Amino acid sequence: MIWNTNLRWRLPVACLLLEVALIALFGVFVRYDMDADPHWVQEKVIKNLSTDLENEFYYRYPSFQDVHVMIFVGFGFLMTFLQRYGYSSVGFNFLLAAFGIQWALLMQGWLQSFDGRYILVDLENLINADFCVGSVCVAFGAVLGKVSPVQLLIMTLFQVTLFSINEYILLNLLEVKDSGGSMTIHAFGAYFGLTVAWILYRPNLHHSKERQSSTYHSDLFAMIGTLFLWMYWPSFNSAISNHGDAQHRAVINTYCSLAACVLTSVALSSALHRKGKLDMVHIQNATLAGGVGLGTVAELMVLPFGSLIIGFVCGIVSTLGFVYLTPFLESRLHIQDTCGVHNLHGIPGIIGGIAGAVTASIANIDLYGEEGLAYAFGIERSKLNWSPNTQGRFQAAGLFVSLAMALAGGVIVGVILRLPFWGQAPDENCFEDAVYWEIPKEPKSTALRSEDSSIKPPEP
Amino acid sequence: MIWNTNLRWRLPVACLLLEVALIALFGVFVRYDMDADPHWVQEKVIKNLSTDLENEFYYRYPSFQDVHVMIFVGFGFLMTFLQRYGYSSVGFNFLLAAFGIQWALLMQGWLQSFDGRYILVDLENLINADFCVGSVCVAFGAVLGKVSPVQLLIMTLFQVTLFSINEYILLNLLEVKDSGGSMTIHAFGAYFGLTVAWILYRPNLHHSKERQSSTYHSDLFAMIGTLFLWMYWPSFNSAISNHGDAQHRAVINTYCSLAACVLTSVALSSALHRKGKLDMVHIQNATLAGGVGLGTVAELMVLPFGSLIIGFVCGIVSTLGFVYLTPFLESRLHIQDTCGVHNLHGIPGIIGGIAGAVTASIANIDLYGEEGLAYAFGIERSKLNWSPNTQGRFQAAGLFVSLAMALAGGVIVGVILRLPFWGQAPDENCFEDAVYWEIPKEPKSTALRSEDSSIKPPEP
Amino acid sequence: MIWNTNLRWRLPVACLLLEVALIALFGVFVRYDMDADPHWVQEKVIKNLSTDLENEFYYRYPSFQDVHVMIFVGFGFLMTFLQRYGYSSVGFNFLLAAFGIQWALLMQGWLQSFDGRYILVDLENLINADFCVGSVCVAFGAVLGKVSPVQLLIMTLFQVTLFSINEYILLNLLEVKDSGGSMTIHAFGAYFGLTVAWILYRPNLHHSKERQSSTYHSDLFAMIGTLFLWMYWPSFNSAISNHGDAQHRAVINTYCSLAACVLTSVALSSALHRKGKLDMVHIQNATLAGGVGLGTVAELMVLPFGSLIIGFVCGIVSTLGFVYLTPFLESRLHIQDTCGVHNLHGIPGIIGGIAGAVTASIANIDLYGEEGLAYAFGIERSKLNWSPNTQGRFQAAGLFVSLAMALAGGVIVGVILRLPFWGQAPDENCFEDAVYWEIPKEPKSTALRSEDSSIKPPEP
Repeated sequence: MIWNTNLRWRLPVACLLLEVALIALFGVFVRYDMDADPHWVQEKVIKNLSTDLENEFYYRYPSFQDVHVMIFVGFGFLMTFLQRYGYSSVGFNFLLAAFGIQWALLMQGWLQSFDGRYILVDLENLINADFCVGSVCVAFGAVLGKVSPVQLLIMTLFQVTLFSINEYILLNLLEVKDSGGSMTIHAFGAYFGLTVAWILYRPNLHHSKERQSSTYHSDLFAMIGTLFLWMYWPSFNSAISNHGDAQHRAVINTYCSLAACVLTSVALSSALHRKGKLDMVHIQNATLAGGVGLGTVAELMVLPFGSLIIGFVCGIVSTLGFVYLTPFLESRLHIQDTCGVHNLHGIPGIIGGIAGAVTASIANIDLYGEEGLAYAFGIERSKLNWSPNTQGRFQAAGLFVSLAMALAGGVIVGVILRLPFWGQAPDENCFEDAVYWEIPKEPKSTALRSEDSSIKPPEP
Repeated sequence: MIWNTNLRWRLPVACLLLEVALIALFGVFVRYDMDADPHWVQEKVIKNLSTDLENEFYYRYPSFQDVHVMIFVGFGFLMTFLQRYGYSSVGFNFLLAAFGIQWALLMQGWLQSFDGRYILVDLENLINADFCVGSVCVAFGAVLGKVSPVQLLIMTLFQVTLFSINEYILLNLLEVKDSGGSMTIHAFGAYFGLTVAWILYRPNLHHSKERQSSTYHSDLFAMIGTLFLWMYWPSFNSAISNHGDAQHRAVINTYCSLAACVLTSVALSSALHRKGKLDMVHIQNATLAGGVGLGTVAELMVLPFGSLIIGFVCGIVSTLGFVYLTPFLESRLHIQDTCGVHNLHGIPGIIGGIAGAVTASIANIDLYGEEGLAYAFGIERSKLNWSPNTQGRFQAAGLFVSLAMALAGGVIVGVILRLPFWGQAPDENCFEDAVYWEIPKEPKSTALRSEDSSIKPPEP
Repeated sequence: MIWNTNLRWRLPVACLLLEVALIALFGVFVRYDMDADPHWVQEKVIKNLSTDLENEFYYRYPSFQDVHVMIFVGFGFLMTFLQRYGYSSVGFNFLLAAFGIQWALLMQGWLQSFDGRYILVDLENLINADFCVGSVCVAFGAVLGKVSPVQLLIMTLFQVTLFSINEYILLNLLEVKDSGGSMTIHAFGAYFGLTVAWILYRPNLHHSKERQSSTYHSDLFAMIGTLFLWMYWPSFNSAISNHGDAQHRAVINTYCSLAACVLTSVALSSALHRKGKLDMVHIQNATLAGGVGLGTVAELMVLPFGSLIIGFVCGIVSTLGFVYLTPFLESRLHIQDTCGVHNLHGIPGIIGGIAGAVTASIANIDLYGEEGLAYAFGIERSKLNWSPNTQGRFQAAGLFVSLAMALAGGVIVGVILRLPFWGQAPDENCFEDAVYWEIPKEPKSTALRSEDSSIKPPEP
């Protein structure tokens, strides 16, 4: 096959066409929700609100910005660990997320914020769009280094569409709780990405094996991503929770889970190394599994020690996955998972889904209080025959639906991306920025020193 | 000319004198506004406020911190793209911003928060001081690598002064809307800086051409700056908007504009490269133009698709500017624009100003509602004969005033900075940290490896 | 002595045992406070709260996240300045902080949030846990590069315990004001760490002298830490202040102090260099001293110019400390202070404590208003014979108690850490990541270039 990686027409045309289409659709469909509309001044009077603070904006803005940082800096820099793929990691993540949030505003809008004529957007829509794109960033981790930006735009287009449908099924039809998206974001994104990676299997990828490792500084750049994901994960899991105690509780639970996860990740990383040394891959990734695993139960009554247990387990399972499962997936199942998303988002996402089913099914009035239970599970809105047991079963069903959608969707999108004209690189040029980026020449370091000495500023 | 770049007395004396003067002026003039004063406990009772949340602090603190990050990390790291000028980019930006915010608190305070005896500061003053310094950071981008820190302190002193006067004319006399500062911050800062750069023209700058490019890792450091600017720009454009729907709307609009801008920047960057490759300069800069272009209209009724269109146009114009205009400015107009601020802040700032004039002149009661219109444009405070048309014309006038002030001020400051005793470097030592910084010796990388193997920890 | 740095069993066992113990203790003791409990729905009705915003969450969440960033990115990256110790700086800081916050939730909980049966945690507990760990991060700076992660876990265990007791004495028994922790966090952490470093004195540390310096890029990574600490310090000093004006005032004061501190740090750095050049060590550290020095008085009536003076002095003293005191401490007192925490946290912490005593003792009704004074110092809760003078004396006593606890605790912990079986490295392998981390091989840079040219994409 002749690999043509020159994107001079394909990438610009794709970007411009998509953006023009988005503008047209936004023009027809998207308007401000009341909280962001100038008519809100009148609405305040009608609703008898005493203060501007009752605007949804003030409940969610700090969380929104934290989530925004996670998507663009968190995921973007986490993937810069590769020695020669930093531009693409940050840059393509930037591109796909910027496209994805616009498309997600439309897709999620039609399904959830459509008033019959317009999609009415407010801050919650922006958060949900970021969430949706988060699942694309996860999938990007599985195919990192092996796809062109055109392929990424196509993948984003389809994945956002499928994500929105899956989310609609889970949240609106099955009425599951999944505030931090263990199922809808992480498990869905991971298995979607892994399926795509499986279809795009490259038997001769060992030709770019050398570039698939890190350098000293690329690992430090990746830690920027890791830490911003880790620190802001409490915002992620609480961003769209109910006002008040639910947001508050989701933060405490996520904080606890992530802290526990660091200790078990470190423990396993050292225990599994011949000389007891730590591996940056585990510190960069497995330490985050506690946030993934807590995504479904974040606002439920797991209690702080329950959160610690989930973090404890996720750290162990995730590190084990990096050591044993990733090589197995590649050699036996022909799934080349560049970032190990299976260990960070796949399994912990499933753990989170299961934890959610269990936690929901043991909910009771002692734990929540009568009104608390009704508020937490939205029972007043739902059908009368609600019981913790049903909720638990629906939670489990939600997990299966997510996995099924991910696998089916991944196969379809994978087949589309296999077409040979998307500008993908040959196996020996994977994980290499120079394919799609103008790369600066490395400076001659000797030249710098001689200049330095030539400065000779006169003494005062 | 003999270049004396030894700042041993000039820089310390400048810093200490300025700081002592600031302390004296703060002692005479600056006090806390009521919201930050212990008497607020009584004020609450008098004003019949039911909750501490009505303190201005809670409306603006998250936005303030985001803006703060943009000024110090955003601008600071954005400019680290140069291979040997990272210390200066981050460090001098830190210095000038730290000085500038103090001087801005005084200048803006005298013009806008003076009660006849004291300047009363609260969080809004801090945000405005950061905004003011933002325009200095923009100008810094134009002269980056060619000026000494003493020159930067002088430039900051004058630019903050001029900025405050210009801002006073626009906001208080012309009563224009410019919540994100397309005119007051970006256009003013860019053309001020470009004028200074024009006066400081260095005909032999090609002697340090080699150092004017980036390295692989310096480009990644710069992306930290880009992304924090990009992510937090919604906070920038909404930080001093009216409470409630205006802040909310400004966030949605900026979010949309920036997303669209990424796609057109990528499209043009690829289309303009012979082999369709992307250029990091465009990704680092042009992707932000959508935020600049939306600065004036952020809280107005542009609607989400209007924001997308502004972002779309700004991304294209900005990338074109980097490819065609920057070389033209240097070769024909003798304006050496190190960071291309003309493309990122200059033209998009003008676009923003024009968009503001147009958007204001088509404002009507259908779009805003009667009370919404009055609230959005502060009509109750203003003269009776207000009409959208007048507002539009005043907006346009504001843009011209800003440009005129920038050019006139830039000439004056440029002439002052041309004086030969400010410690500036010769042409062949521009863009070089070693002129003003103690630089670590590069480690012998072989040494590290041998040490590594010498560790030989005994097996357990 | 035979140095066994293989931690294969020691580190995993330590982590897992600690985490299991934490889970058990959390299970027995930790529950949600009312604001984070589902019963809050009912509580709102009982307390007649009109809005969910009255949940403590909305007062403190933005500050909490900023503090969180300071602990993990701020301290973590600040310490990456060493050329070969970036993984350990970020990674061990991550580990000790993740463990520390859990243990602090328990220790501080028993002493301050215990209802007789349970520790009731809410967001304020999380902030306080981060604060407590902040003092461990400070101490880590003193011993950086010379201890194993096992030693760090032990140090954290003891230091958190001592911190909590010291904090209880100061805040609950002496009822001192210390909202930003000049005394409890910075002075305590610094002198604790310095005492440990003194006991762990390594006479042959010059063998790893070469690795004790920075490289060009490691200094830029460190600036990420510096700037996030600097920018978010206003949140640090205001995070647990009283609602309303106190939080607002603490932000303004800290903002001013830090800005002044940058100018004097730069001035002294240049003045103390033979050729007037700036030293990155000072820019990275001394610029932050203004935040430390303002920790005790942040919410008191120092007035903006008082804050500037504190920042002015701290910047000077801190830079002088780096130039003259650190070498003196090492050569004469045998205290090897890797990060110069004595200059950044030690002396400025003492300055802060003294400033607090002075400011408190001149408090009066003119400055605060009658109700303001009562609210600021919590007089209604306290004994009747309160006077500014007593408060000042108690503040001074608090400083002495903190220093005494730090020295006594540091000796005990230092002696424990001297035991030879904690996996510490020999003197010639200090400051070296390869001892505890799997390090990537440096890529052959020639290989990359040849690959680059081999790509040869066909022209379109």
